[in-house]
Amino acid sequence: MVVTSRRTMIPIEVSARHVHLSRTTLELLFGRDFVLEPLHSVSQPGEFASTATVTVLGPKGRLDAVRVMGPPRREDQIELSATDEHVLGLLAPVRDSGDLKDTPGVTLESPNGRLVLSHGVIVASRHIHMSVEDAARFGVRDHDLVAVRVASGHRELVFEDVRVRVSPRSVLEMHLDTDEANAAGVESGSYGMLEPVPSRA
Amino acid sequence: MVVTSRRTMIPIEVSARHVHLSRTTLELLFGRDFVLEPLHSVSQPGEFASTATVTVLGPKGRLDAVRVMGPPRREDQIELSATDEHVLGLLAPVRDSGDLKDTPGVTLESPNGRLVLSHGVIVASRHIHMSVEDAARFGVRDHDLVAVRVASGHRELVFEDVRVRVSPRSVLEMHLDTDEANAAGVESGSYGMLEPVPSRA
Repeated sequence: MVVTSRRTMIPIEVSARHVHLSRTTLELLFGRDFVLEPLHSVSQPGEFASTATVTVLGPKGRLDAVRVMGPPRREDQIELSATDEHVLGLLAPVRDSGDLKDTPGVTLESPNGRLVLSHGVIVASRHIHMSVEDAARFGVRDHDLVAVRVASGHRELVFEDVRVRVSPRSVLEMHLDTDEANAAGVESGSYGMLEPVPSRA
Repeated sequence: MVVTSRRTMIPIEVSARHVHLSRTTLELLFGRDFVLEPLHSVSQPGEFASTATVTVLGPKGRLDAVRVMGPPRREDQIELSATDEHVLGLLAPVRDSGDLKDTPGVTLESPNGRLVLSHGVIVASRHIHMSVEDAARFGVRDHDLVAVRVASGHRELVFEDVRVRVSPRSVLEMHLDTDEANAAGVESGSYGMLEPVPSRA
């Protein structure tokens, strides 16, 4: 029997293209002692959308006003949708955040100048942030792959290969990119339903 | 038991944005006695991509070089992805081809001039073209909704709400738009697998 209840509802957040930048990259693009100012908070504690944007330039095209997220990260990471990649004319792999080995580079532009990054472009794997308590409740572990049904009423689908990311301070939320959200006909604030997880031996 | 075999494999075709235009609209945009010339055939018999393109203009943006399909249709139909809609700044419904009631309009531009369409913009419902024989083999009927699993290896998902379209001359093929294909990590030439169809009473 499949039991569906409020307990298995996962809030959805749609991630538009954005960048996480290192302190060094921020200073090269925006000047010495530059500090990211929060524009608005996002659901995961401590993270925020900053007031800063950059232009991302590829071999074939450009994307203007791409949001810089804060706080600074150890490594530059450029998160695009596959549609964005077509616009730029590059092909980046679907990866978990932070897994940047053998990823393509890109050029970033600010009012101060341009900077060529050797790597760091990914299409982010769909994933669910959750707390340790959520993970216990759902019977899943950090790094598991689960399936989530999204029923918009007209473009229902089941996302497989959804990565579980467990962290003590995380707030329960599934992150989709814009292509995925469009394919499912949903927006931020919609809900997905965790498909039954097989019990462990 | 779920039986998977070659019999249930559905070839996938990814539909980029395109327009179907009436003879009247074609003459207004391209001149009297204009005839669409085939650029290349597409899988469904009699249909073709023409050498003609138009620019599609919305309140917020434009899409250049949008392919005109042939032959002419009775009604103008502009098929976009949800991503395209965001670029143009309009919101069109997900609809089956030909279901154009209460759809938004858009402006088309050719080298000869501009034409304002009062309606006709849709995001096409994902669908499977199939012959009468295919339908019998799969146990489905025209206009049914079925589910198709698409396993790209890294972004597997199950598309629900896939419309079945049965026609004597149709070639078996599932049509996805670019958002859907990106969300599943597939391209034209990939395959989907029809999920088991409940037997009818």
